[in-house]
This record gives sequence, structure tokens and C-alpha cells, in this order.
Amino acid sequence: MRNFTYFNITKIVFGRGVEEQAGKEAAKFGRKVLLHYGGGHIVRSGLKARVEASLREAGLEIVELGGVQPNPRLSLVREGIDLVRREQVDLILAVGGGSVIDSAKAIAMGVPYEGDVWDFYAGKAEAEESLPVGVVLTIPAAGSESSPSSVITNEDGWLKRGYTGAVLRPRFALLNPELTYSLPPYQTACGVADMMAHIMERYFTNEPEVSFSDHLCEASLRAIIQEAPRAIAEPENYGARANIMWAGTFAHNDLLGNGRLGDWASHDIEHELSAIYDIAHGAGLAIVFPAWMKYVYKHNPERFVQFAVRVFAVEQDFFNPERTILEGIRRLEEFFSRIGLPTRLEHAGIPDDRLEEMAAKATANDTHKLGNFLPLGQEDVLAIYKLCR
Amino acid sequence: MRNFTYFNITKIVFGRGVEEQAGKEAAKFGRKVLLHYGGGHIVRSGLKARVEASLREAGLEIVELGGVQPNPRLSLVREGIDLVRREQVDLILAVGGGSVIDSAKAIAMGVPYEGDVWDFYAGKAEAEESLPVGVVLTIPAAGSESSPSSVITNEDGWLKRGYTGAVLRPRFALLNPELTYSLPPYQTACGVADMMAHIMERYFTNEPEVSFSDHLCEASLRAIIQEAPRAIAEPENYGARANIMWAGTFAHNDLLGNGRLGDWASHDIEHELSAIYDIAHGAGLAIVFPAWMKYVYKHNPERFVQFAVRVFAVEQDFFNPERTILEGIRRLEEFFSRIGLPTRLEHAGIPDDRLEEMAAKATANDTHKLGNFLPLGQEDVLAIYKLCR
Repeated sequence: MRNFTYFNITKIVFGRGVEEQAGKEAAKFGRKVLLHYGGGHIVRSGLKARVEASLREAGLEIVELGGVQPNPRLSLVREGIDLVRREQVDLILAVGGGSVIDSAKAIAMGVPYEGDVWDFYAGKAEAEESLPVGVVLTIPAAGSESSPSSVITNEDGWLKRGYTGAVLRPRFALLNPELTYSLPPYQTACGVADMMAHIMERYFTNEPEVSFSDHLCEASLRAIIQEAPRAIAEPENYGARANIMWAGTFAHNDLLGNGRLGDWASHDIEHELSAIYDIAHGAGLAIVFPAWMKYVYKHNPERFVQFAVRVFAVEQDFFNPERTILEGIRRLEEFFSRIGLPTRLEHAGIPDDRLEEMAAKATANDTHKLGNFLPLGQEDVLAIYKLCR
Repeated sequence: MRNFTYFNITKIVFGRGVEEQAGKEAAKFGRKVLLHYGGGHIVRSGLKARVEASLREAGLEIVELGGVQPNPRLSLVREGIDLVRREQVDLILAVGGGSVIDSAKAIAMGVPYEGDVWDFYAGKAEAEESLPVGVVLTIPAAGSESSPSSVITNEDGWLKRGYTGAVLRPRFALLNPELTYSLPPYQTACGVADMMAHIMERYFTNEPEVSFSDHLCEASLRAIIQEAPRAIAEPENYGARANIMWAGTFAHNDLLGNGRLGDWASHDIEHELSAIYDIAHGAGLAIVFPAWMKYVYKHNPERFVQFAVRVFAVEQDFFNPERTILEGIRRLEEFFSRIGLPTRLEHAGIPDDRLEEMAAKATANDTHKLGNFLPLGQEDVLAIYKLCR
């Protein structure tokens, strides 16, 4: 087990009706709030009105910035920074999913920074401070509500880049599972694949002596595998929605990664896919992750046997580990299929004529290795894209 | 799943040599530190000198208060409060196990309070503020390093009482598994039973729809069951010690209890035992918990079947749940025995001639019910004590 530091300042308020506490929690950080959100869904559902009422009741002044898109854009972040400075906002309240939260975080660290906010994403600066960010979560998937990360897309060159820094953890996150009732099955499934990938990226490590977090990762995956089909079949099942929502936060708040070195190659490989094709991140991960597993399992077969046996209850073939491993991967694909996700490029209508280009781009023409479990060069990544066919 | 709030401000710094960071972390909270500890062990091991060197290097002034005993005493807490006020200490650094940390927390909330610190434990007051507390942990067991709780014994009447309040979570906890190498096997085992009990008290609930935390609880127990015998057989096995140490923190920081209503009757029943007889809390729990299980399982047999199957991999008898349940309890007792703990009163040299007295005291003469899973009156508690024989 590696040395680690874990410091998570996000206050989680979980359950029915907790969005009504937005005002109470926000008022701890000042008098003026930027309400940051995406499209009209939160208007139509009445959520925006409820949150605004709560903020006003707490005596807070509201400034608004909607229009966050999936793969949140740098231009809106810059607009938000100007607005917050001009209006002297004290707190940014993100009402939405991962994209809205990531955009809010970018604005929050951009405000006190003298340079350009893209500097953080371009690796040119570290964020030392940030305005406080609060969250009312509507999509369980990205885990951004309690993570120290933000991913932003720069329209100038369509660069999708992430930044991670301790100051980015939200100060509070209000999680009401009822707000996820209206998520369509496909979007629910994409969120599920995203959270499973967050766990598996941490799970596949060569670090020895991590049995406690191994068991926690496996348990989290099993719980998601148990609850996801129920949440999809019965969208208003509170219990299923609640377990999935809490799992999504847990999957990416780093508790499952403490003491381990995660991999993250599959995320990088998927990013190239969703950068070119219009595919949801979770759906892309459902295609890429099993392909990655097929390519790398020989590097540490014991870990893949453990995955198969403990996560998918595969009857172990003690004389033929490979059979056990491949059955585990097959069951993962089967699970993704069952909840309506693609597991091959063609299922998502993606052609295979730009695989070389994506492999080159992902590895910056073979100058940059992907992942830690087994560092991958351009040829490896190409082979994995081919396994996605 | 119940609504819940989770807010844990403890910064965890985990790994080899982290006690050397005591000065750096403490300096964030002021210039003067009360170094609070128990006996001579930390002097002999050199830990005290290392921590002091780190504090001095960070420019901190040190005030000392040793002498904390197991079941920490109110008189020393009062002495500490006077000392901290007189010396205008900014931070209390607990170097030790649960008793030292609980004593530090009591001092920390007593200092800014005008009344008597026992008011908190007597249920007469709520702590609204506290000096910051830091921890260098030497015994993985109580989980106090990241919990909001403190248990203190008032010598006037030998009342052992707990207080839980958000202000009591330590601000940082330095966890170096190497510091636990010198723990004798019996003390290691007592710590293991304590952390398992913290998990099982949360696990045995009637709350529906808690499958995510069910899986996490079961995973934590399985990891402890896997690692504990190794930590005891090979006291200087870093991996085993590290997994056990992190499990001890995780078991009681409330992550496993979120959304659930825990039981805690076994803790109350054990407290009477250790109040009269000189037995370690963990050893007492190894006797009481299986007896409690035998008495209450009929109330919710499905949960006990799940425990047996998922935690101890009992081959399920689908036609006879009771056989499965009793085999699960038997394996728990067998595990406690294997790591050297008593599972019957006589193993600990405790006679059975005061069971009625303890049952009356635990329930305040049948006016107070114990536990939430199945609220227990005086006769129930007596029956459980009898099952401890």
C-alpha cells in the first residue's frame, strides 16, 4: 500500500427534498450566489424555482448563468468569470450533472487567478484558491460533486483537458435521488458505466497489499451491478436510485483509490473517441474498458481472476486462469449490453476508419504512454481500438 | 435508505514516517501545542522524541500532559482544561490510541465552554465549538482519529459516558502502520474485534434499500478477517498492518453507516461488563456480540442469512435459513477464538453471579431499551448475558 493523503471537505446532504437546503448551506459562504446550470430541464421540472426560493428565503441575492453544454466549454467559463467578478459573487451553486459542476469549478478557480483560467488545464499553473462551489446534483455519473477534478473543452482546437486540485472539492453537495427519476434509461446506463469505470480504473493496479480497498472496490461494483438494472426498469424506485446515486459519489471521491496507483488509460482512450464521435462518455467506456482488459490481462492475470471471481462470481477454473478471466470480461460486456449500452464501435454506429489517427493522437504520436497498470504506446492503443470492433 | 448528512473534516495522512509531519500539520492551527499521551511506551519507542522534534522544527511551543489511562478519566480532562487555558494552547495533539484521543477531544471542547465539561457527557449541553485536535495514532481500534465521538469515565460514580458532536472530529490524523508493529497479539486482536463490532453495529439494521452500504460493510469485514490473522502472526508485516489500520478508521468514520440506523445494543451490554470486570472493550465485544446475534436473529433472519453467506461464505441451506444463520455466528466465534479472543465469560475468567445486576444497570431497571434492531429490555439483556456463559 502506498502512502496517501485523504482530505475531503465536501459536506454531503443526502435524501428526499434536500435541495430545499440550498439556501441554508449557501448562506454560510456569503450573500450573493451565481446559479449555474445547463438547459431547460431544471426549469421545466420546477427544480430551478425550488432552489431559487430556498436561496431567497435565506436572504441571498441570485445571479444566473445557464447554458452549460455536455463537454463544458471554455468560452462559457470565461463569461462566468467576468460575470462573477463584475457582480462580486460569493459562491457558485451548480445545479446539474458533471458538466455543470466542472464548469462551476473552472469559474471558481478562475476568478481569483490573475492569468487565463486555461493555464490550469494546460498544465501551466496550479490553483491555490477558489471561490466556494456548492452542488445540487441531478445526474449520478461523474462524481464531480465531491471530487477535486474538472474537465473543460477549449473550442480553440477542441482540446478536452482536466485539472485536479484540492481547492476544487465542492463545499457542499445536495443529493436527492428523486431528482434522478426523470433520467432516461440510456443516460442512467451511461452514468452507471462511468461510475463503474471510475472504480475499475482504481482497481486495476499492480500495487501489492491493498486488500482492504480491493474488497471495497469489488463491493461497490457488485452493488452497482445489483441496483442498476432495477433503477433502469423502475425509474421511480427510490431505493435503487438512492443506492446508485450514493455509489456514483463514492466511486470518485478517492476513498476507493487511497494507497493505490490507478490506471486511467481507458479514460484517455475513450476521450479520443468522444472527441471525434458524438458518443456519451459512459457509452464510450462500455466499449473501451472490456477491450483494454482483453489486451492487458496477461500482465497481471491474478488480479483479473480476482475480478472475475469476486465481482461476477465466476466459477473459478483453477487449472485455467485464462478461462476464468475471459468469462469475467464476457460478463462485464454482458452486463453493459443488458443495461442498453454499446460494447462494440458498430453498436454505436462508429466506423473503424480512423483508429490509427486516434491512437496517434492519444499517445501524441507515440511520445506519451497511457496508463499505469501496463503503460501503452501507440501500437498498443491501436490494438485496443481494434478490439473495440 | 434514510436521509443523511456526511461531513468529515479529518485530513488523513497515511503511510511510513508520517508522524514526521506532525509539526507541519500542527503549525496550521497556531503556535502552541498540548502534547497529550498515555504512558511510557511512546517515550521508550522514541515516538515522542520524533514528534517533539517535528513540532519544534515547525517553530511550535510544546506543553505536555501524559498519564491518560485506558477508559480515560474525567479528572485528567479537567486538569488538561486548566492547563490549556493557563498556557493558552492553540491545538491539542493526541499521540496514542482511542483513550488518548477521546481525552484530547474532551479537553478541546471543555476549554471554550463556560460550564463543566461533564455537562456534555451527562446530556446537559451540546458542544458548539472546540479547540482543534490532531492525532498521531498508535492503536487501530476505536476509530476515534476520524470520528465525532469521545467516551470518558467519571470517577465520581464510575460512570462511563459518550458524547458525539460534529466539532469533535480531529482536524488531522497521522497514521503510520509501522507504529503498530509493537502491539502485542492480544491487543491487536482486541482492536480487530472493536472495529468489526463498529461495522456490525451499523450492519444489523432493519432499514430497507441499503444494498450499497451492505456490500461495503461486508467487504470491510471480509478484508479484516483476511488480514487480522496475518497481522497477528507477522507483527512487522507492513501490508497486513496497513490494511488493518485503514480498516479501523473506515469502520468508524460513519461512511459505512450513512443512510442506516445502527443498533449499538452490544456496545451498551459490553460497557457494563468492562465497567465491573477488568476486560478490554474488544474482548468484551467478542463475547457479547455473538450472544446478541443468537438472541435477536429471529427478528430479521434474512439479514443474518446474508451476513453468513456474504461475510463468511457459508454454503447456504435454502430450505433451512436457521442452519445458515447459526453457522455464520459459529464462524464469527471461531474467528474470534482463532485470533486469541474469549467468546465466553469463563474464557475471560468472569463469573456469572452478577448478570442480573448488570442487566438491571444497563437498562436502568428496565426503564430504558437498548438498541434499534430489536429494542431490548432488562429480561432480554439478562438472557443475552446468559448466552455469554
